[in-house]
Amino acid sequence: MHVQQMISTHPQMRGAVNDALIQCIEECYDCSQTCTSCADACLGEDAVSQMTQCIRTCLDCADVCLTTGALSTRRTGSNEALIVRMLEVCEDACRLCAEECERHAKDMEHCRICGEACRRCERACAAARTGYAATLQ
Amino acid sequence: MHVQQMISTHPQMRGAVNDALIQCIEECYDCSQTCTSCADACLGEDAVSQMTQCIRTCLDCADVCLTTGALSTRRTGSNEALIVRMLEVCEDACRLCAEECERHAKDMEHCRICGEACRRCERACAAARTGYAATLQ
Amino acid sequence: MHVQQMISTHPQMRGAVNDALIQCIEECYDCSQTCTSCADACLGEDAVSQMTQCIRTCLDCADVCLTTGALSTRRTGSNEALIVRMLEVCEDACRLCAEECERHAKDMEHCRICGEACRRCERACAAARTGYAATLQ
Amino acid sequence: MHVQQMISTHPQMRGAVNDALIQCIEECYDCSQTCTSCADACLGEDAVSQMTQCIRTCLDCADVCLTTGALSTRRTGSNEALIVRMLEVCEDACRLCAEECERHAKDMEHCRICGEACRRCERACAAARTGYAATLQ
Repeated sequence: MHVQQMISTHPQMRGAVNDALIQCIEECYDCSQTCTSCADACLGEDAVSQMTQCIRTCLDCADVCLTTGALSTRRTGSNEALIVRMLEVCEDACRLCAEECERHAKDMEHCRICGEACRRCERACAAARTGYAATLQ
Repeated sequence: MHVQQMISTHPQMRGAVNDALIQCIEECYDCSQTCTSCADACLGEDAVSQMTQCIRTCLDCADVCLTTGALSTRRTGSNEALIVRMLEVCEDACRLCAEECERHAKDMEHCRICGEACRRCERACAAARTGYAATLQ
Repeated sequence: MHVQQMISTHPQMRGAVNDALIQCIEECYDCSQTCTSCADACLGEDAVSQMTQCIRTCLDCADVCLTTGALSTRRTGSNEALIVRMLEVCEDACRLCAEECERHAKDMEHCRICGEACRRCERACAAARTGYAATLQ
Repeated sequence: MHVQQMISTHPQMRGAVNDALIQCIEECYDCSQTCTSCADACLGEDAVSQMTQCIRTCLDCADVCLTTGALSTRRTGSNEALIVRMLEVCEDACRLCAEECERHAKDMEHCRICGEACRRCERACAAARTGYAATLQ
């Protein structure tokens, strides 16, 4: 992805742009695609009736990650407090989805991969949030 | 919209579905469309250079409202804590956008209408959240 | 919704804005919410294993409708040819989803309601597209 | 991204999954993020009044790419004809956005990078579409 390149050429670089946020944006888009794919793979399983909770958490996580990625991408104007709130929700959504996917990881490889993507995104949100917290004080 | 009709025919009606949440889902979709329209109208103004903050808050609010509307729509599985968190962020995003739009409301009718839509959605999120809070205790 | 109010106060009203397009934008947001709700209701059915195709078409239709609604909302700049192409795809997505939902309409009320919403959106896209076609010649 | 890994572990691998489609899904998410970033960078320019058309095409392209990426990700059920239609629209949206960004590429580095991302996504959609065309005959 081109997150770093794009942010480094933005005319308004004021505000807390740092490596943690850039990493977080990339993980958000990656996690959203992975969750969309996992929801669909779960739907294609013979045992779909046991996967409904996982489909639900994947769909929610895919939506939350996209919105977090878009908000975190925008640098014009200043609403860092809102970004921090959104990063917190994204961390929650990723953790919930990871916990659910991990329950199926032994039997379904797509859930194992998706659980890992969610954990990476959860950590990236926490790191980006911590970076902001220092700035906002 | 068909929010009420669809939710009342859902096979899993457990959980806190109430009139406040139904109203909130409708306001979220309405507010998202209105903010998308206001961002575009601001972009079309001759004085666009004075509207950049408003465009930013409208784009953010449009994204947050859509994700809140989608999460709140889903009833299968249980993640009411996540919905409550998302409703809080949506309330914030709507308030920030309303405050910005209200600054231009005298001069630009689209900002006046959008500010009102954001305030309605802000109140609807607060009411839905309060409904959940009672349930989750 | 406030589609009509917002478009009528837009600074750049050049281009083919007409009642058909306004109706179409409202149907797109309504249909997206209804399809999101129907996918989730299908997921909550005991017979979920027979509803996987319906969940798939509902998820696709929800995405396509949102993008069509957002593109059709924007009036600044001119890309009417792209809007017409998107309206065509939306018409297709709505027809496919309606056909699938109608197969389950007798047994599942949410599919009956969703099928009707898709048919309304399909017709609204066709009407908006016809309006543009006259303009673009 | 994990597109390849996820698709290769999907329980229903029937249908035309090939390297061209996988590449296309990655480009769609990348292009969407890049266009979201470019729209915001254009908004932050002092000369924003000259960038309104570019902001418009970037916002449209970001939406179309996301929906194309999500539809192309799903493998359960069969709607290859709809995916092909969506890939065509995405190719159009990327070409229009690339043409606009290229007009500003000399003066604004973010537009140069975004124009390139759009061209890559345009080519990837065309390649994925060609792959499907052979399958659907």
